[in-house]
Amino acid sequence: MIGLGRMGSDMTRRLMSKGHVCVVHDIHPAAVAALEQDGATGTASLADFVSRLSTPRVVWMMLPAAIVDQELAELCPLLEAGDIVIDGGNSYYRDGIRRGADLTRRGLHYVDVGTSGGVAGLARGYCLMIGGETDIVDHLGPVFTALASGIDAAPRTPGRAAGHYAGTAEQGFLHCGPQGAGHFVKMVHNGIEYGVMAAYAEGFNILRNANAGKRTHSADAETTPLQNPEFYQYEMALPDIAEVWRRGSVIESWLLDLTATALLQDPTLDNFSGRVSDSGEGRWTVAAAIDEGVPAPVISAALFARFSSRDNAAPANRVLSAMRKEFGGHDEKKEGS
Amino acid sequence: MIGLGRMGSDMTRRLMSKGHVCVVHDIHPAAVAALEQDGATGTASLADFVSRLSTPRVVWMMLPAAIVDQELAELCPLLEAGDIVIDGGNSYYRDGIRRGADLTRRGLHYVDVGTSGGVAGLARGYCLMIGGETDIVDHLGPVFTALASGIDAAPRTPGRAAGHYAGTAEQGFLHCGPQGAGHFVKMVHNGIEYGVMAAYAEGFNILRNANAGKRTHSADAETTPLQNPEFYQYEMALPDIAEVWRRGSVIESWLLDLTATALLQDPTLDNFSGRVSDSGEGRWTVAAAIDEGVPAPVISAALFARFSSRDNAAPANRVLSAMRKEFGGHDEKKEGS
Amino acid sequence: MIGLGRMGSDMTRRLMSKGHVCVVHDIHPAAVAALEQDGATGTASLADFVSRLSTPRVVWMMLPAAIVDQELAELCPLLEAGDIVIDGGNSYYRDGIRRGADLTRRGLHYVDVGTSGGVAGLARGYCLMIGGETDIVDHLGPVFTALASGIDAAPRTPGRAAGHYAGTAEQGFLHCGPQGAGHFVKMVHNGIEYGVMAAYAEGFNILRNANAGKRTHSADAETTPLQNPEFYQYEMALPDIAEVWRRGSVIESWLLDLTATALLQDPTLDNFSGRVSDSGEGRWTVAAAIDEGVPAPVISAALFARFSSRDNAAPANRVLSAMRKEFGGHDEKKEGS
Amino acid sequence: MIGLGRMGSDMTRRLMSKGHVCVVHDIHPAAVAALEQDGATGTASLADFVSRLSTPRVVWMMLPAAIVDQELAELCPLLEAGDIVIDGGNSYYRDGIRRGADLTRRGLHYVDVGTSGGVAGLARGYCLMIGGETDIVDHLGPVFTALASGIDAAPRTPGRAAGHYAGTAEQGFLHCGPQGAGHFVKMVHNGIEYGVMAAYAEGFNILRNANAGKRTHSADAETTPLQNPEFYQYEMALPDIAEVWRRGSVIESWLLDLTATALLQDPTLDNFSGRVSDSGEGRWTVAAAIDEGVPAPVISAALFARFSSRDNAAPANRVLSAMRKEFGGHDEKKEGS
Repeated sequence: MIGLGRMGSDMTRRLMSKGHVCVVHDIHPAAVAALEQDGATGTASLADFVSRLSTPRVVWMMLPAAIVDQELAELCPLLEAGDIVIDGGNSYYRDGIRRGADLTRRGLHYVDVGTSGGVAGLARGYCLMIGGETDIVDHLGPVFTALASGIDAAPRTPGRAAGHYAGTAEQGFLHCGPQGAGHFVKMVHNGIEYGVMAAYAEGFNILRNANAGKRTHSADAETTPLQNPEFYQYEMALPDIAEVWRRGSVIESWLLDLTATALLQDPTLDNFSGRVSDSGEGRWTVAAAIDEGVPAPVISAALFARFSSRDNAAPANRVLSAMRKEFGGHDEKKEGS
Repeated sequence: MIGLGRMGSDMTRRLMSKGHVCVVHDIHPAAVAALEQDGATGTASLADFVSRLSTPRVVWMMLPAAIVDQELAELCPLLEAGDIVIDGGNSYYRDGIRRGADLTRRGLHYVDVGTSGGVAGLARGYCLMIGGETDIVDHLGPVFTALASGIDAAPRTPGRAAGHYAGTAEQGFLHCGPQGAGHFVKMVHNGIEYGVMAAYAEGFNILRNANAGKRTHSADAETTPLQNPEFYQYEMALPDIAEVWRRGSVIESWLLDLTATALLQDPTLDNFSGRVSDSGEGRWTVAAAIDEGVPAPVISAALFARFSSRDNAAPANRVLSAMRKEFGGHDEKKEGS
Repeated sequence: MIGLGRMGSDMTRRLMSKGHVCVVHDIHPAAVAALEQDGATGTASLADFVSRLSTPRVVWMMLPAAIVDQELAELCPLLEAGDIVIDGGNSYYRDGIRRGADLTRRGLHYVDVGTSGGVAGLARGYCLMIGGETDIVDHLGPVFTALASGIDAAPRTPGRAAGHYAGTAEQGFLHCGPQGAGHFVKMVHNGIEYGVMAAYAEGFNILRNANAGKRTHSADAETTPLQNPEFYQYEMALPDIAEVWRRGSVIESWLLDLTATALLQDPTLDNFSGRVSDSGEGRWTVAAAIDEGVPAPVISAALFARFSSRDNAAPANRVLSAMRKEFGGHDEKKEGS
Repeated sequence: MIGLGRMGSDMTRRLMSKGHVCVVHDIHPAAVAALEQDGATGTASLADFVSRLSTPRVVWMMLPAAIVDQELAELCPLLEAGDIVIDGGNSYYRDGIRRGADLTRRGLHYVDVGTSGGVAGLARGYCLMIGGETDIVDHLGPVFTALASGIDAAPRTPGRAAGHYAGTAEQGFLHCGPQGAGHFVKMVHNGIEYGVMAAYAEGFNILRNANAGKRTHSADAETTPLQNPEFYQYEMALPDIAEVWRRGSVIESWLLDLTATALLQDPTLDNFSGRVSDSGEGRWTVAAAIDEGVPAPVISAALFARFSSRDNAAPANRVLSAMRKEFGGHDEKKEGS
């Protein structure tokens, strides 16, 4: 395991808890030391790391997408034909296709694994979406089995049975196709995640403002009055609503479980500023939709809402204000909604 | 129970299975007869129905939103002061506020209950979102307890404990506020549902078209060629992808479980035409967002996608084609994408 | 003319410049005095105002939508059967239908006029969208003719000819239908305006950021690096781009003219904060689309962008940040994009 | 001029009408013959074409984006150092950057010109957005001046004056930056065009359905009844509304002029099917917005509406129907809205 951030460390621990022997490396010695305490073999250099693995080596990288290429440039010369390199991070699937071709030229095997599960994965197991050569993916079966959440993670889908669709999907990992396919599926997974998260977020915002009729509104030509304040007189208990939806509703989900946890701790979520990062997959999902000619209005709206949360709409908004000033003489209102 | 459609019948059966005695009514005698066979007391008229209930009567209506008012017009004169009428259907919460005021004037009690759970509710139990007077809602506790999915339906949210937020949300039902509050929360629930469903639907569409590079594309001034066909060469196994996401991924949800079931039965879903109905709550959710000044781009995009699925965008599209003809002399292409 | 804000004053001036005699009223004496200097008959009370008009009186109101009802309550008792009241402001068309019915019951005539043109209307003339009884609208023809921009405001549409569609649309005013129809058409006009404005605003934002590749970006697991900084190395001259588009391009428009003016004065528009008001019609347009089942993704996205410009998305964004913290341990980034 | 489709032919004619001498080439002899009749020098082969031009040659290509590279592969070996190649078609700006580098290596000059104006350009002149080396662009000034719409195409922007922003934007052409900049600006221009067109299209769809209250609606649990049919009783005259908006309204534009023309010819636009093509720039605009982190909800919604108009949402809609069937037992409705 190269890269002992949150994900890499937890995955190493899960592998070891299932009986796998792990050699680890990270540029931060403290991260290596922490894993050594948990039973891993720490290494101080890539050369040392490589030398500790028996051939065919299996190297799993959990690194920020931006530094995978430089890591590969250092790593590959140290490896031997037949060794396997796995990119388990959030790489763009097109980089996976390119890297796969590069490594194949060098006699190495490249496998891309989209890994979902987050900080809960250590305990729950991970959902693994895999791209690569079939025999190599088969060879790695025990590793994937150890990391994956396993068949007990969810009730069996009606109609699934031994022999029918007899793949590994029920185990929590899936060979999705050739190189890049794993990160493609993970990309779409995260795109969906953006949309699902945004749907809940919008819903809770609407609930929170169900008391809009209690607030006074100014009456001027610039602002429409709330037509029917009597219909917005509710003070909604968001933590309890999240909780009740977890039981028997159509919108039960793990993301809702997490929302219920967060709202219970802090019903107003005032500890958050609301600047929402995006780590690439949402962008790539929309780009793929566009290439394919597939409408993705929901996922793209979710993506753009994140951009707007970081004030990136401000220049556009200033253009709107400037137009309004020109045609209507409207000065901007400085506050209120 | 008045209204023995799918929902009304199942809820009656669940109530009886928990020891409640039920009197039922429906305009279709066959529906009544079916419930009689399961142990309910059938009635042939509203008057008969009312006469079989002991006071204070508890009348639960599960009717299409469009006929609730006419049913109330017939029912209310037959009731006595102190009787309770529950609207468990998909009514607009504003109608609930109005009806609540009407019934209060007549000395009756009105409770609105948003009911989620669908055809699975008989077995899983329902998620109940309740609006009304506190003492009346408390009085109905045993009914809600019988219908709700119960505390075992989901693992306990970390941080919840006896005495802390000691409400009924963990039981699967929640008194959300005064009259209308139950249907308000249910409305937003369904709005979220629209968004979540659309996120998955878009994602599976993108996966399905991951083979776009294999299709030939025409090269003319009207159609942009796919820039990089080599990046869209995947044949994705949708049923397996839905399955693997059910285990350990961030986007685990009940809607995903259902999608996995549907895709397993029919991987191309060709049995469906894709005309998607909407039953009102999505519309009302967006309308509420607008009244409140709350952005809801995801939920509204999901709603509009349903409108478009029913060809309602066609007049707008013809305007676009007409403009293109005027400025560019572009004739419409008759096929292809 | 009742209501001597920017619009009411300018319209009065235009009427007088075309030979009409105007009696004016406003709660602000200074506004009345200013019009008196320009030749209008000022009045200090509604009673005085009404007494100065000869029957059948024609009363044009240019008031904020929120105070039209209270003004009508004061005004109507002072009028006589056969008098005409015109609401030229930004009223909701449904209020127009209701007010029309009220005034009809009193023997009065009600006409709703959606008025577009803004501060430029005094010189350019206005675009008038009219609802009401046909004979009353016909009676008001000279007033509408004076206010409207006239046939020379635009080249003749190919195919229009004397006798064919021989209405007044070419004069710049149109009887759209019965009471409410004028404000309905004005509502949709403004909804379109929202969408058009937002399209330009987004475009200029994209142009402004065509230099994104010159900015350094951090590389971490939270932020995707810009894949191809070499493609975003342009410093675009926004004022000149707006200017060149005004001549011969497909997107020539008056709103673009105004944008070019604003960008010439202040290329970065830093004098604006970007908090964009909405005065109701955009909301009502989307609500109408939803009632009709018509997809309006563009107009609604434009509306929601305005809501977001006023920080109304913040509670939703905090929900997103809270979810990300729960599943990924992600802390919010405090700055950067 | 290479490429004598609609645009190439018209531009050649405009150049000749301004006194330029033009040599033309096209793979279709008939297109060449037509231009010869109008005074151009026709050529039957690329070699012949090149031989007729004096050095430094100026070659303007108006070709579908998909075949520019193959044309350049044939053309460039025939050229000499110092010759100039102009791509005036709808190429992706990134291809322009690449081609520019290629041609520079060969000692040739490459200029990319985004050309707006459509079939009206012959008479109105074109709007030209130009990328390339400054001295080369300056050298081509007379060509751009002949093609451009000129200063009289629009009233002067207030604040523009001799010496201030003393560029060519007022002439209708603009040197936007280095190679690729012209097509970048044209790309955004077309992205805006998508959004503006969609705003009008949605608006006219809403107007057309202002009679929704006159249609009968079924009342069942699947379909929400129109809450207030009395508010949707209008039969709107779309051709007249488009016409009146052309005079004095805020949404005056050339696209509206064209819409008025189209609606006058065919008020229902039933001659169009509503399958709307997209020729790439809208896709690239959204992709650029995503790369830059700039929200583009309106332009992307417009793009996705075009995808949906070509039935590309159908697989997603089938997923929605399948989910609804699973959770609610809902069968699809076969017709109605």
